[in-house]
This record gives sequence, C-alpha cells and structure tokens, in this order.
Amino acid sequence: MSQIPWDPYRPDCPSRRLLDRIGDRWTVLIVRVLDTGPHRFSALASAVGGISQKMLTQTLRSLERDGFVTRTVYAEIPPRVEYALTPLGRSLQQPLRALEEWAIANMDAVWENQKSHDALAG
Amino acid sequence: MSQIPWDPYRPDCPSRRLLDRIGDRWTVLIVRVLDTGPHRFSALASAVGGISQKMLTQTLRSLERDGFVTRTVYAEIPPRVEYALTPLGRSLQQPLRALEEWAIANMDAVWENQKSHDALAG
Repeated sequence: MSQIPWDPYRPDCPSRRLLDRIGDRWTVLIVRVLDTGPHRFSALASAVGGISQKMLTQTLRSLERDGFVTRTVYAEIPPRVEYALTPLGRSLQQPLRALEEWAIANMDAVWENQKSHDALAG
Repeated sequence: MSQIPWDPYRPDCPSRRLLDRIGDRWTVLIVRVLDTGPHRFSALASAVGGISQKMLTQTLRSLERDGFVTRTVYAEIPPRVEYALTPLGRSLQQPLRALEEWAIANMDAVWENQKSHDALAG
C-alpha cells in the first residue's frame, strides 16, 4: 500500500487525473457496455453511438494502461481481438452505473431547469 | 414527466451531455465542497486547488443552469455572493461521492498498473 494520502483537491495529485478519466463520458459508456461481456472493437464502436474510431482507440488504450480493460488477440484467421473488463474494471461498475442512472433519472428535471434559466436569461 | 426515453448511448440525446457534465472533475470537486455548506466564490476557489477563475465561473454557471446550484446575492456592503446546492444538487452527492471514493481507494492499484504497463511499453 502507498503511504501517499491521495487527494483529488490537490492539483498535482494523480487521483485528480484518475477522477477525470473515470468520469469521462466515453469511459462510462464503454465500461458499462463491457459489463455485458467481452466485445470486439467494431461491436464497441456500434454500441457507443457517435464515438470516433480515434477516440475509441485512445479511450481503450487508457483503460488498458490503468488496468481496467484487457485486450486479447486470438490466433484465428482473421485474428480476433477482444476487449474485456478486469476485476478492477468490474469494481468500477457500481459508481459508473450510479452516475448513468442518476443522469437518466434526473434528465427531465435538468431539462426543465435549463428551459426556465434560458427563458429568464433570454 | 417526459415521454422521451433518455439514452446516453445515442449521440444526440441530451442525457449524454448531462453525463459529461456531472462526471467532469470540476463538477465533482465543487459539488462535494458545497455539500459542507454554502460557499463564496473565493472560498470555493481555494478549496479546489488549481482551478482557474475562468473555469470556476464557467462551471458554476453551468451548475446554476442545470439547477444544481443557486447563486444568492446578499445586500451588504460590500455585497456578499454565496453559492449553495439545491435539493437536485444534493441528490447528486451520492453518485459523485461514490466516484471520488472509488478514485481514492483504487489509486494505488491504478498506479501499479500504469507502472507495469509503461515498463512493458518502454
């Protein structure tokens, strides 16, 4: 265990960057899709509407580096590459699911607030 | 209630942008600080290390527009301006606290994964 007290309120603490990455929209959506099982790149791309190939590649690399996702190449012809959650990645499910569910459950209220706010401002 | 099925996997759904905003590092840190009570701008700026004045202003405006935060001006000399969570903003505490706690609890593991990954890649 580290002796460093991680503190995302300190600008230089790596936990702030981690918080950034796990709260990222693409991380949330990809990790939630991978919760249903391993996926190939193309299947991920179509599950997460509108993500560019470049952004999916970058996000998967970052998820691999942090140890949330494994990339497995199967020696078939043509080679099959699959992405799957690690146990650490699975442990991230609970907070990300809570975030996603909050967004869906409260979108109506936020929408109404935005309309009132913009009407006053306009 | 809205009849629209909010779906953050659809690129055009406003719930995706909402997910983006609530997962944003500044939103997480500011909402968590405001959980301890109303704050003035300067107190928020010093609680969230390294945030620029511009970014704090932008984030607070967005939190106000979504209905998470109120901005109250007290007619004193000099005028006092305080930011506080709304009930909707308070309901966001639980998922954001879970996210922050996950980041702190798992930072050691992520750090080790990054070191192994970079050693292999290097």
